[in-house]
Amino acid sequence: MNTNVHISFPAVCFVWQTAMIILFGIFIRYNEESDPHWVEHKKANNLSDLDNDFYFRYPSFQDVHVMIFIGFGFLMTFLKRYSFGAVGFNFLIAAFGIQWALLMQGWFHSLDAEGKIRIGVENLINADFCVASCLIAYGAVLGKVSNVQLLVLTLFGVTLFAVDEYIIVSVIHARDAGGSMSIHTFGAYYGLCISWMLYRPNLNQSSRLQGSVYHSDVFAMIGTLFLWMFWPSFNSAISDHGDGQHRAVINTYLALASTVLTCMAISSLFNKHGKLDMVHIQNSTLAGGVAVGTAAEFMLMPYGALIVGFCCGIISTLGYIYLTPFMEKHLKIQDTCGIHNLHAMPGLIGGIVGAITAASASKSVYGEEGLINTFDFEGKFKDVVPTQQGGYQAAGLCVALCFGVGGGILVGCILRLPIWGDPADDNCFNDEAYWEVRSSCCSQLPEDEEAASPVLHYNNHMQNKDV
Amino acid sequence: MNTNVHISFPAVCFVWQTAMIILFGIFIRYNEESDPHWVEHKKANNLSDLDNDFYFRYPSFQDVHVMIFIGFGFLMTFLKRYSFGAVGFNFLIAAFGIQWALLMQGWFHSLDAEGKIRIGVENLINADFCVASCLIAYGAVLGKVSNVQLLVLTLFGVTLFAVDEYIIVSVIHARDAGGSMSIHTFGAYYGLCISWMLYRPNLNQSSRLQGSVYHSDVFAMIGTLFLWMFWPSFNSAISDHGDGQHRAVINTYLALASTVLTCMAISSLFNKHGKLDMVHIQNSTLAGGVAVGTAAEFMLMPYGALIVGFCCGIISTLGYIYLTPFMEKHLKIQDTCGIHNLHAMPGLIGGIVGAITAASASKSVYGEEGLINTFDFEGKFKDVVPTQQGGYQAAGLCVALCFGVGGGILVGCILRLPIWGDPADDNCFNDEAYWEVRSSCCSQLPEDEEAASPVLHYNNHMQNKDV
Amino acid sequence: MNTNVHISFPAVCFVWQTAMIILFGIFIRYNEESDPHWVEHKKANNLSDLDNDFYFRYPSFQDVHVMIFIGFGFLMTFLKRYSFGAVGFNFLIAAFGIQWALLMQGWFHSLDAEGKIRIGVENLINADFCVASCLIAYGAVLGKVSNVQLLVLTLFGVTLFAVDEYIIVSVIHARDAGGSMSIHTFGAYYGLCISWMLYRPNLNQSSRLQGSVYHSDVFAMIGTLFLWMFWPSFNSAISDHGDGQHRAVINTYLALASTVLTCMAISSLFNKHGKLDMVHIQNSTLAGGVAVGTAAEFMLMPYGALIVGFCCGIISTLGYIYLTPFMEKHLKIQDTCGIHNLHAMPGLIGGIVGAITAASASKSVYGEEGLINTFDFEGKFKDVVPTQQGGYQAAGLCVALCFGVGGGILVGCILRLPIWGDPADDNCFNDEAYWEVRSSCCSQLPEDEEAASPVLHYNNHMQNKDV
Repeated sequence: MNTNVHISFPAVCFVWQTAMIILFGIFIRYNEESDPHWVEHKKANNLSDLDNDFYFRYPSFQDVHVMIFIGFGFLMTFLKRYSFGAVGFNFLIAAFGIQWALLMQGWFHSLDAEGKIRIGVENLINADFCVASCLIAYGAVLGKVSNVQLLVLTLFGVTLFAVDEYIIVSVIHARDAGGSMSIHTFGAYYGLCISWMLYRPNLNQSSRLQGSVYHSDVFAMIGTLFLWMFWPSFNSAISDHGDGQHRAVINTYLALASTVLTCMAISSLFNKHGKLDMVHIQNSTLAGGVAVGTAAEFMLMPYGALIVGFCCGIISTLGYIYLTPFMEKHLKIQDTCGIHNLHAMPGLIGGIVGAITAASASKSVYGEEGLINTFDFEGKFKDVVPTQQGGYQAAGLCVALCFGVGGGILVGCILRLPIWGDPADDNCFNDEAYWEVRSSCCSQLPEDEEAASPVLHYNNHMQNKDV
Repeated sequence: MNTNVHISFPAVCFVWQTAMIILFGIFIRYNEESDPHWVEHKKANNLSDLDNDFYFRYPSFQDVHVMIFIGFGFLMTFLKRYSFGAVGFNFLIAAFGIQWALLMQGWFHSLDAEGKIRIGVENLINADFCVASCLIAYGAVLGKVSNVQLLVLTLFGVTLFAVDEYIIVSVIHARDAGGSMSIHTFGAYYGLCISWMLYRPNLNQSSRLQGSVYHSDVFAMIGTLFLWMFWPSFNSAISDHGDGQHRAVINTYLALASTVLTCMAISSLFNKHGKLDMVHIQNSTLAGGVAVGTAAEFMLMPYGALIVGFCCGIISTLGYIYLTPFMEKHLKIQDTCGIHNLHAMPGLIGGIVGAITAASASKSVYGEEGLINTFDFEGKFKDVVPTQQGGYQAAGLCVALCFGVGGGILVGCILRLPIWGDPADDNCFNDEAYWEVRSSCCSQLPEDEEAASPVLHYNNHMQNKDV
Repeated sequence: MNTNVHISFPAVCFVWQTAMIILFGIFIRYNEESDPHWVEHKKANNLSDLDNDFYFRYPSFQDVHVMIFIGFGFLMTFLKRYSFGAVGFNFLIAAFGIQWALLMQGWFHSLDAEGKIRIGVENLINADFCVASCLIAYGAVLGKVSNVQLLVLTLFGVTLFAVDEYIIVSVIHARDAGGSMSIHTFGAYYGLCISWMLYRPNLNQSSRLQGSVYHSDVFAMIGTLFLWMFWPSFNSAISDHGDGQHRAVINTYLALASTVLTCMAISSLFNKHGKLDMVHIQNSTLAGGVAVGTAAEFMLMPYGALIVGFCCGIISTLGYIYLTPFMEKHLKIQDTCGIHNLHAMPGLIGGIVGAITAASASKSVYGEEGLINTFDFEGKFKDVVPTQQGGYQAAGLCVALCFGVGGGILVGCILRLPIWGDPADDNCFNDEAYWEVRSSCCSQLPEDEEAASPVLHYNNHMQNKDV
C-alpha cells in the first residue's frame, strides 16, 4: 500500500464520521414512536404499546441486519486469501453507508415541517436496504480495489440509490418492497460498470489466489444460508402490515425452495462428471429470492413463485457456466462474485415479473379494498388502474437500470484516478495488501495440521513442476 | 459416480420440481390471513393487523428455519472431508422436502370445501418440522449414499411423516407440539433402519476419512449452538398463543441448560485422561431439547424440565461411548452422526415424559379452562380425561416407532436397488464423489499456513533458528 | 490434567446440577403469563394473548441468546489452538450460570408472598445478562484456567452480579437497561482482578500458541458480527414497552455504526504499513454498544449516540495498541482477549454518559409523563428530579466498580489454591489440556491441503510406527 493511502484512509473515516455527527445533529430526530411523548400520544389516540411499529418490524429488521453483515460478508469469504477483506470491508461499507443512507433517504422521504428527519425502525430497515446495493456492487470488484475506493463507491452508491429509489417509489409510484429493481438491478449494474471501468488486463497475475480452498467454501455457505433463510424477511420487511407481510414471506419461501432444485440440477448436468459446484450452490440458490422481490407482496400465487424460482435457478447457474467467462473475455467485465448472475439477471426478471403481476391484478382476485391497499391507489394515485400500474413498474425498472449503468460509469471514472492506492495486479485477492496477516507464526506448531508449515523448497519444487 | 446418476439426478430434480408447480397450481392458495381480502375480513370481524397469526409465529418460524438449514447442516460438517455434502445435501433435502410437505400436510390438515389447501405461516413451520425428520434420518446415512438416494429418502420420509403425524395428532389426539414422537422418534428410527438395510461390511476402507479435523469440529459447533439456542422456538412454534408458547420456551430453555452439565460431566468422567470429547458436546448437549418436545407446553414444571435434561445428558453421552460402537459391531447399524443417541433415545423419553405429564394433569394445577385449552378437550374430545390423554400419548409414541421402523425397512429395501449410484466403500465420507473440490491449487501458496505441510525436520530447523 | 480434576470436574457438575433441581423444585414456578391460568386471567382482565409479555420480549430474547452462546463463544475462537475451549467452555459457563442466575435474581426481584419465584421470559433475559458478565470475565483468563476454575468463577460471578444489580437497580434506583455498569464494568473488572491474582510470570512459554491463524480469525468474526448486529436487542431487551425499546434500538444501532469507522481509522493509522489489524476489528468495533448500554433508552439523541461511538472506537483501539501491553508488563494483568478495552473502559464511559444524560433530562424534552415513564419516578421515587437521578447513576457506577474489583480479588484468591488443576505455563492456550484433539489422523490425507502434510515419507514413517 502506498503512503498516500496510509494517511488517506484514516483521514476519510474521521472527516466522514465527523460530518455525520454534525448532519445528524442538525437533521435527525426520533419519530413519534421512539420519542418519550409516545406515552401521551398513545393515550390521546387510544393505542396500545403493540401498535408501535417496532413490534411489527423489529424481528424482520434483525433478519435483514444479519443478511447485510453476516450474509453478504460471509458469502464473499470464498476466496482462499481474501476472507478478511470480504467480511471486514463488507462491515466497513455497511457501517459507513447506513449513516449516510439515513440522511439521504430521510431528506427524500421523512422530512417534516420543521426540516427534521424523524427516524424509527422502518428507517433503519431502509438504510440496511440501501447499503445492500453497495454490497452487491462490492461483489463485482472484490479483491481488486482499495479500502478508500470502497468508501468512495459507497458514498456515491448510497446517494444514487436514494435518488433512484425516490424516483421509482415516489415519483413513478412503482411498488418495490423487496427491491428487485431499486436494490438488485441498480446495485448490480452499478458494480458491473465500475468493474468494467477498472478493467485489469493482467489480472491473471494473481490467478493463484483467485479460487477457494476447502474451508473457505464452507465459510461462504454460512453467508449463503443466512441470506437464503432470511430472504423472506428481506422481501416482507417494509410490506404492508398484515396480509402484505404474510404473503411476501410465503412467496419468497417458495421461490427460494424451487431455485435450489433447478440450480443443483443444472450444476450437475453441465459438469462433465455430474458433480456439483460450490460456486453455483453458494450463489444461484439465492436467485429466486431476488426475482420475487418486487412481486412478493402481490398475488403472485404460490405456483407463480415456484415458476419464478424454477427459471431463475436455471438462468443464474447457466450464467456462471457460460456468461461470466464470456463477459470477462469479450466484454472486459471482471465480475469476482458473479453478481451478474445472482443480482443483475434475477433483478431484471423480478422487475418484469412485478410489472406483469401488477398489470394483471383485478378486483376479483384482490377484492376492492385489497387492490387499493396492495397498490396504494390512494391520494393522487387513486384513479390508477392495474394496467397503468404495470407500466409504472416497467418504467421503474428502466430507471433502476439507467441509474446503475450511468452511475457505475461515472463512479468508475472517478475510481480510475491514480490516487486511491489500489493493489497491483499480482497483489489482487490478497489480504496482505490491507490486513496484518499472522501466518508465519504457525510454523512453531509442528503437530498442527492446519497451522502447518510451508516448507519452501517443497512448494518451489511444485511450482517449478507447474511451470 | 456412474453415468447413470449423472443423468438421473438432474432428471429427478426437474421432474419433481415441475410436478410441484403443477400440484401447487391445482391445490395451494393463500389462507385468509395472507390474502388481500384480509383488509375486509379484519374490518368485518373487528380485528387489528396484530391478530394476524403472522405476528404470533413469524419470529419462531425464522428460528426454526435457521435450525433446519444452519443447525442441521453445520452439525454434520464435523467430518474432515464431507462438509460440502453435509451442508449442501442438507440444503437439497430441505428445499426439496418442504414443498412436498406443504402438499402432504395440506391434504391432511388444511383442505377446504373447495378442495384447496390454504397456507399461512403455520404451514411453513410445519413443513420445516416435517423435513427435520428427514434430516435426522440423513444423519444416520451421512457420507454413504448418493444424492439421488437422498431425494428418494426424502420423498418417502415426508410422505410417511405426514401420515404418521395425521394419525398421532388428529386420529389419536395426542399432543406433540415439539415433535418428540412424530419428528424425532420417527425420523431417527426411519434413518437407523435405512442404515441397517444399507449395511456396508467393508466401510473401514474409508476409515481415514471418518473423523474430524480441528476446524471441522469448530464448524460443527455452529450447528450445535444454533440448534441449542433456537430449540425453545422449535418446541413453542406451534403451541397455543399466550401461555402455551411462553411455557414451552421456559421448559425447553431449562432442560437444555441442565443437559449441558451432565453431558460434559459424563464425557470427562469416561475419558481416560478426563478430557472432553467434541462429539459429545456437539450432539448430546441437545438431547434435553428433544426430550421435552412433547411435554414442553404441559405443566412439566421448571424442576421437571431440569430432571429430564439431567437424565438425557447422561443417557445420550453414554450412548455415544458404548451404544454406537455396539450397534455397529453387533447390530450392523452404522450410524454416522449417532442419531440414536441424539434423537431416538431422547425422543422415546420425550414420548414417555409426555404421557406421564398428561396423565397426571389436574384441574387444580391447570385450572378448568386451562386444562381444556392445553389439551384441546373440545369437540368430539370434550369428555376426555387426563389419564385417557396419557394413554393417547403412549399410543402416539408406538405409532411413531412403528412408522419409523416399518418405513425405514421399506425405503431401505428400495435404496438397495443397484440403480442409485451410491459411493464405493473406499469412497464414502468423501466430497470428491459428488462435488468439485479444488484442493490442489493451494500448493501454489507457499506463504499459506493452512494450505501447508508439516515436515518435521523443517520445523525443527525453524525452531532452532528461532532459538 | 492431574487426576484430581479428572474426578472433580464431573463431581462438581453433578452436585451442582442436583442442587439446582432441588432448589428449582422448592422455589421456581411459572409466572402468571406462562401458567395455564392465563386463559382465565386474560378474560378477567379483558386482555388479548398479545398482551402477554412473551410477544414483546421473545424476539429480543433470542437475539440476546445468540449473543451469549455464538457471540461471546466465537469471539474467543481467535486463538489458533483454543477454539474448542473458547466455544465449549463458554457454553459450559453459560448453561451453568443461567440456572443459578434465575435463582439469585429471583430471590432479589421476583419472590412472591408464598416464597416462590415466578419466572417468565424477562427472567430468562436477565439470566442471560447475568452470565454475560461471567463470560466477559472469562475473556481475561481465556486459556489459562481449568474447567473447574471456570465453574467457581461463574458461581461467584453470578452471585456477586445479583447482589450488585440489586443494589444498583433497586436500592440506588439507577437505570441500567443495557448493563454498561452492572454487566460490563462489573464483569470486566471482576475478570481483570482475577487475572491479576493469577498472574503467570512465565506465560511466554506458551507464546507460540498465543496468536491466531487465518481461519481462526474468520471464526472470530462470526462472534463479532453476531454481537454487533444483535447489540440493539441487548440494550433494548428489558427496556420499557413501546418507545423505550424503540429508542434503545436506534441509539445502539447508531453508536455501533460510528464505532466501526473510528476503530478502523485508528487501526490503520497506528500501523506502520497502514494495515488493519483483525484484533481491533474483532473487538473495538463493539465498544460503542457497550458505551450506550445505560443511556440507550434515554434521550441521548441520534447525534449523541454517534459521538459516544466515535470516542469509544478511538479509545478502545488505542487500548489494544498501548494499554494491553502496558498492563501486562507493568501491572501484571494478562488480559487474553483485551476485555479492558472492550468492556471496562467503554463500560465506565457508558456509566458516565448515562449519568450525564439522566442529569440533563427535562420535561420539555421528555414530556411530563415521558419523564416519569422513562426514569420510573414512581412509588417512593416519585419526587426524584433528573439531577438527583444523575447522582444515582454515578453512584451505581461506583458500586459496579467496587463489586468488580473486590469480587475479583476475593475470587482470585480462591482460584490460587493449588487444587483446581490449572494448566502449566507451557500448556496454556492449548486445547489438548482439556479436550480430545484428533489432529494426527489427518496425516493420512495427503491430497488434503488443510488436513495437510503432503510430504509422504514423513507420514509413512509415522504410520509404520503406529503399526
